[in-house]
Amino acid sequence: MSQRTVSTKLRVRYSETDQMGTFYNSRALEWFECGRTELLRTAGVSYREMESRGVMLPIIESHVEYLGRAQYDDELLITGAVSMTGKARVRFEIEIVQAETSKPVARGWTVHAVVSPDGKAIRPPQWFLETLS
Amino acid sequence: MSQRTVSTKLRVRYSETDQMGTFYNSRALEWFECGRTELLRTAGVSYREMESRGVMLPIIESHVEYLGRAQYDDELLITGAVSMTGKARVRFEIEIVQAETSKPVARGWTVHAVVSPDGKAIRPPQWFLETLS
Amino acid sequence: MSQRTVSTKLRVRYSETDQMGTFYNSRALEWFECGRTELLRTAGVSYREMESRGVMLPIIESHVEYLGRAQYDDELLITGAVSMTGKARVRFEIEIVQAETSKPVARGWTVHAVVSPDGKAIRPPQWFLETLS
Amino acid sequence: MSQRTVSTKLRVRYSETDQMGTFYNSRALEWFECGRTELLRTAGVSYREMESRGVMLPIIESHVEYLGRAQYDDELLITGAVSMTGKARVRFEIEIVQAETSKPVARGWTVHAVVSPDGKAIRPPQWFLETLS
Repeated sequence: MSQRTVSTKLRVRYSETDQMGTFYNSRALEWFECGRTELLRTAGVSYREMESRGVMLPIIESHVEYLGRAQYDDELLITGAVSMTGKARVRFEIEIVQAETSKPVARGWTVHAVVSPDGKAIRPPQWFLETLS
Repeated sequence: MSQRTVSTKLRVRYSETDQMGTFYNSRALEWFECGRTELLRTAGVSYREMESRGVMLPIIESHVEYLGRAQYDDELLITGAVSMTGKARVRFEIEIVQAETSKPVARGWTVHAVVSPDGKAIRPPQWFLETLS
Repeated sequence: MSQRTVSTKLRVRYSETDQMGTFYNSRALEWFECGRTELLRTAGVSYREMESRGVMLPIIESHVEYLGRAQYDDELLITGAVSMTGKARVRFEIEIVQAETSKPVARGWTVHAVVSPDGKAIRPPQWFLETLS
Repeated sequence: MSQRTVSTKLRVRYSETDQMGTFYNSRALEWFECGRTELLRTAGVSYREMESRGVMLPIIESHVEYLGRAQYDDELLITGAVSMTGKARVRFEIEIVQAETSKPVARGWTVHAVVSPDGKAIRPPQWFLETLS
């Protein structure tokens, strides 16, 4: 299946560090979300717009490999790809590297269900499948 | 106006520290919320129950004084008091100290509006005023 | 290898919810950390004490399955187990359920390296292996 | 006293919303930090560089007024100013508005001590005073 890819940048916030001096591990999932948000925006329908059209993508699985340190004020480059997996699952692959040196920071993936606002699994609408392909 | 007071304990999480080795400043507001939650539960109507009865308390002002360090795994004691201020404002006073030594960590207050689920200011219902008094 | 298990409770904070009305996905990793902290404390050497003895456990991999909703003020039960994996890796298995109903909320695992304060991989000291076994 | 001002933009993350559908209150303090970081960078010495030169600015007081909603994916404009207050206190004033409509979201200030890495209050060095003026 073809994949859309996109990249976005952010800086590590002081609030995202911990006493080891690198980012706290759960921040990786928050940065993955920044990657997903920019991916969908670039694909043509922002996630916000998707929710307003009645398509929600609650997460059902996440996986992160921690590959290197990232300190306060480091600029990070987030690259991602999205694809359908199975009939009604969306999978995002995300990679985070230091923007300046390309040193790896974290990589992983998340899998999401496709549901209506009341939480019922739905068949992904045609506009949704077209956005992702 | 009479005040209800209550105290609760929590431990500093690793995720709440930053690279200075103490808690990141915004955590104080999250701990203030823990204090508010336990205060209202002890007063007889949990905040969750309040929201389900149609009374929401969005924050409109916060103030924090940072008085001392708190490190990962330190046990903190949160003490709070709640009172009406004006006709439709609720004010929480919160104090956080080290549970073992009583050394001060932070203190401050938050002021909240009283609104309906659609965000309109409302006259606090009688049961609400009774809970707080 | 034998495993230590332990359970601890916490309540979902308002700050941990998101606009879907359940907990935001990265909180699961923060709750996993609460499980690890209590596991090691129960095993006899708190993680804080470990760090002060020069043994740090930076995370190198995390995996979460999201199994059910958890709303503000829900009480959660966190159960965990820890074991060595390979010569110098520590693995924590964590399960989170609703405390009242035992409905599953999330489960997963994290793998950690064993390093000195300057980040070098070290052979786990004898007291450390004994704590875990 | 003269003030430096600067503005920066960010988008509200899904992780920063709560079940009321707007940003959780403690995020304002995290966004204030983004404002401080960009202010100091623009002034010529990034906060990271300051810390590496031995000048740390731990927060001692914060104040936030919550003025309006900000939802997931809203673009916010953060404007700030910094000045010395007293002999060894630094004060940041921050204002956050919706980038598109200029509707106010939050405003407030933080006051910081000037200390050495071991936490002792220090006389702000000349380069530091020049950066701020």
